[in-house]
Amino acid sequence: MTKKITLIGAGPAGSLLALLLARRGFQIEIFERRPDMRKVKISAGRSINLAISTRGIQALQEAGLWETIHKISVPMKGRMMHSVKGELVFQPYGKDDTEVIYAASRAELNKALMTEAEKQPGVTIHFNERCLGMDFKTSEVRLRHEITNDEKTIQTETVIGTDGSASAIRADMLKLSRFNFSQEYLEHGYKELTILPGPNGAFQIDPNALHIWPRKAYMLIALPNFDGSFGCIFFLPFEGPQSFAMLNTETAVLDFFGAEFPDALALMPNLTKDFFENPTGSMVTVRCYPWHVENKALLIGDAAHAIVPFFGQGVNCAFEGCMQLVSLIDRYASSWEKVFSEFEQKRKINTDAIADLALENFIEMCDRVADPQFLLRKKVEQALEKKFPHLFVPKYSMVTFHRLPYSVALSQGRIQDKILSEICDAIERLEDLDWVKAEELIQKELVPLQTT
Amino acid sequence: MTKKITLIGAGPAGSLLALLLARRGFQIEIFERRPDMRKVKISAGRSINLAISTRGIQALQEAGLWETIHKISVPMKGRMMHSVKGELVFQPYGKDDTEVIYAASRAELNKALMTEAEKQPGVTIHFNERCLGMDFKTSEVRLRHEITNDEKTIQTETVIGTDGSASAIRADMLKLSRFNFSQEYLEHGYKELTILPGPNGAFQIDPNALHIWPRKAYMLIALPNFDGSFGCIFFLPFEGPQSFAMLNTETAVLDFFGAEFPDALALMPNLTKDFFENPTGSMVTVRCYPWHVENKALLIGDAAHAIVPFFGQGVNCAFEGCMQLVSLIDRYASSWEKVFSEFEQKRKINTDAIADLALENFIEMCDRVADPQFLLRKKVEQALEKKFPHLFVPKYSMVTFHRLPYSVALSQGRIQDKILSEICDAIERLEDLDWVKAEELIQKELVPLQTT
Repeated sequence: MTKKITLIGAGPAGSLLALLLARRGFQIEIFERRPDMRKVKISAGRSINLAISTRGIQALQEAGLWETIHKISVPMKGRMMHSVKGELVFQPYGKDDTEVIYAASRAELNKALMTEAEKQPGVTIHFNERCLGMDFKTSEVRLRHEITNDEKTIQTETVIGTDGSASAIRADMLKLSRFNFSQEYLEHGYKELTILPGPNGAFQIDPNALHIWPRKAYMLIALPNFDGSFGCIFFLPFEGPQSFAMLNTETAVLDFFGAEFPDALALMPNLTKDFFENPTGSMVTVRCYPWHVENKALLIGDAAHAIVPFFGQGVNCAFEGCMQLVSLIDRYASSWEKVFSEFEQKRKINTDAIADLALENFIEMCDRVADPQFLLRKKVEQALEKKFPHLFVPKYSMVTFHRLPYSVALSQGRIQDKILSEICDAIERLEDLDWVKAEELIQKELVPLQTT
Repeated sequence: MTKKITLIGAGPAGSLLALLLARRGFQIEIFERRPDMRKVKISAGRSINLAISTRGIQALQEAGLWETIHKISVPMKGRMMHSVKGELVFQPYGKDDTEVIYAASRAELNKALMTEAEKQPGVTIHFNERCLGMDFKTSEVRLRHEITNDEKTIQTETVIGTDGSASAIRADMLKLSRFNFSQEYLEHGYKELTILPGPNGAFQIDPNALHIWPRKAYMLIALPNFDGSFGCIFFLPFEGPQSFAMLNTETAVLDFFGAEFPDALALMPNLTKDFFENPTGSMVTVRCYPWHVENKALLIGDAAHAIVPFFGQGVNCAFEGCMQLVSLIDRYASSWEKVFSEFEQKRKINTDAIADLALENFIEMCDRVADPQFLLRKKVEQALEKKFPHLFVPKYSMVTFHRLPYSVALSQGRIQDKILSEICDAIERLEDLDWVKAEELIQKELVPLQTT
C-alpha cells in the first residue's frame, strides 16, 4: 500500500479525510481549486450554511473538532412553518431536546478542518490549483493554476477525488469502459438571500428552528447564523409561469415576496440586491459506479454521490464515508484495491438511499409540512417511538439522530409510511389513535433496529 | 432557418437523415470517423446484422431503398428455441406470415444509404474525420483526421449529432448547465461468432427464424445472413463464476459450448478463432435531456438514446426519429429551435419506453422463452388479437409490426401482462381459456388502438 496520497479538493470532505489519513502516517498533498478561504474572502451566493447532525458530529468528534464547531453553531429543534398570513406552526425534529440539528457556517467548518489538517505532519494544501483530469494509465493528474494559468502534470501514486459534484476525476472515469453514471437536475433552482440581525445582533425570528415558508411548488427556508443573521434559500422552478425566468425585475421580486412571504420580506431589506447579485444555483443528483480505478483512484463524497440538499445530509454523508474509508484502510492495510472495492460495494446502496430520501424530502418540505394531517403523523411517530423505541424510530430520526444505514432508513421508512397511513388517515387527533392496531402492524411489519 | 447542416456520423441514421434533408433542399456535410466502408473492409466483430421491422421498413420505403434492402435480407417468422439436448421449439413473432422481421447486414444497409445520400445534390461525406467535440458558444466543431492526425476546427450553422452511443457532441453538452444524462451498462458483454454456410451456400439451420439458445443467465442467438451463414451473438456476464473472465482458454470455451450449446458448436468450426479474435462488446442504455442546444445542435438516434439490442429496435427507432424530425422541419420551416424543442419533447417519452422494453426483453430472451407457460401466453396473445384486433395487439407486435408510439406499447403491454397472468396462470392449454373473463378484462382495462 503506497503511503503517498493525492487529494483533489480541500472542501469539508477532503480536509477531514486528509486529517484522518495523516494521523495514520500517510503523506497527503491536496490540490484545491479555490484560493485559501482563510486569507481571501470567497464570493458568497453558494451554500453558506449547512445542518450538522449525528453522522457529522461523530466524524468531527473523531477529528477533535466538534467542540470548536459546536461553539459557533446554532441548535435547531424543529421546523417553524410560516403561513402566508404569518401564522407560525412548530414541528419538533426529535423526541426531545437532545435530538437537535446544528446550523453551522460551511466556510467556518471548512476553515477549521483545513487548519487542523495542516497541523498534521505530512499534509500540504496547494491552493488555486484546478484539476483538469487524470490519466488512469499513467496516474498523471493535470492541473492548472487559477491565477497564472500555468498547466502542469504531476505523477501520483493514489488519488482520492474529493472534488465535489462536478468532479474532474469522475469526468475522466466517464471515458473508461463500462462506467455507469447519471446526473439528474431538479427543475428548481435556488437563490441565497439574507435576513439581517436585529439591533445588537439579536435574532429577528426564533433562532432555534429551521424556518420554512412552504408554498407547494416553491418555498423559502431560513437557517440561523451564529452572528444573529439568517441564511435564507429560496427554491423556485427555473422556467414556467412562477419561475426565476419570470422574476426578472425588482418590482416582480418585491411583488412576489410581498404576496407569498410578507413576514420574511419585512426582515429582508437587501432582498433585491441579494436576488440580482447572487447567482441562481442548480441542484443535481449524481450517481455513478464503480467509484474506483484499480489501486489508482477513488471518488468519495459529492464526487461519487452528489445529492439535493433537502435532508441536510450532504456533508454528514460525506463525513460518514470518510470514516468508513479509513476504517477499511485500518482493516486492509495491504491493498488499496481491496479497500476501494469493498468501500464502494458497502457504501453504494446507502448513498443511493440518501439520494432518494433527499429527493422525497423536497416534496415534504415544499408541500406536506403545511398539511394538518402531516403534523398529526409527526405526533403519532413520536408517540410510537416513545412506546416502541427499538422498533419504531421515525425515518427522519434514523437518518438524522442515528447512524443506521441510510438504506435501512429508506426501506423501514417506506413501511412506516404505509403503517402511518393505515392508522392516521381516519383520525384527526393523537388521542384517537388505535394503539392495538398500531402495535400489531409495527410488530408484524418492522424490523428491530440496533440504534446507537 | 439556415440551409447548411453538418451531420456528425454517416451511420444508418446519419445517412438516412442526409438523404431526407437533401431532398428538402438542405446542404449537407457529413463527417464520419471511419473510412469509407464501400472501399475499405471494416474490421468485423461489431453488430454485423440487425433486424428491420415496420418502422425501419417505412423509413426505407420513404428513402426509396426498401426494395433493394428487401432483396438482400432474410425474413424471420419467429424464434426457434434450442434446448441443451438440441430439441427445437418454434414461436411465431406475428399473427400470420405477413408479420415477419428481416435480418439484414448492417454494413450493406449502411452502404446503400450512403450511396443514395451521395446521389442527392448537396450531400458530401468526409471520411476518416473523427469529431472531437463542439463549442456551443462559437458553433465550432473540432475534427481530427484519423490517418494524418491533423486537427482542424470548422465553423457550422446547425449540427445534428448522429454519432452514436459514444457521441462526441453529447460529451460536450454534458459540460453545459443542467444537462441530464445517464449511461447504464449491462453486466453482460457480447461476442460475435459465426455459423458458416453448408455445402453450396446452404443454410445449416432454419433460415427463417431467429435462433435462441436460452440458458437463463446467458444465451446464444443466431440471425441468418443472405450468404447462407448465421451471425451469432453470445451474451454472458463479464465477471463472475460463468463469465467472459472465466472463458480464457480454448479448452474452457470448447467445454462450455459443448456442455451448453452442443448443436451450435457442431456448426461452428471457427468458434475459438472468432472467440479470441473478436472483442467482447459492452451494452449501454443512454438517456439524456435536453437533446438540443438553441438552434445550434441536436442529438438524434443512439447519440440521444442508445438502447440495448434485445428488442431489435435500435436502427428502427433511429429511423423513426429521422422521419419525425423531417416532418417537423416541414411543419416549422422557420425555426430550428422550435423544431428541435418540439422533437425532443414529443420523442423523449417514446425513446425512454423502448429503452425499458429492450431491457425487459433481455430477461424474456435469456430465460422466459424456454418456459412452457410463456409459450402458452404467446398462443393466448395471438388468439386474443384475432378476436379483438383493435383492443389486444400483443406488446411485441405493437413495437415490431405497428407504428404505435413505443410509450403506448409499454403502458398497454404492462396491462396486457397483468391480464395474461389472470387468465393464463391457472391453465395449461389454449382450449381451457376463459373467454368471458378475458373479454371482460380486455374491454375494461385496455385502450382501443389506432393501428396503421
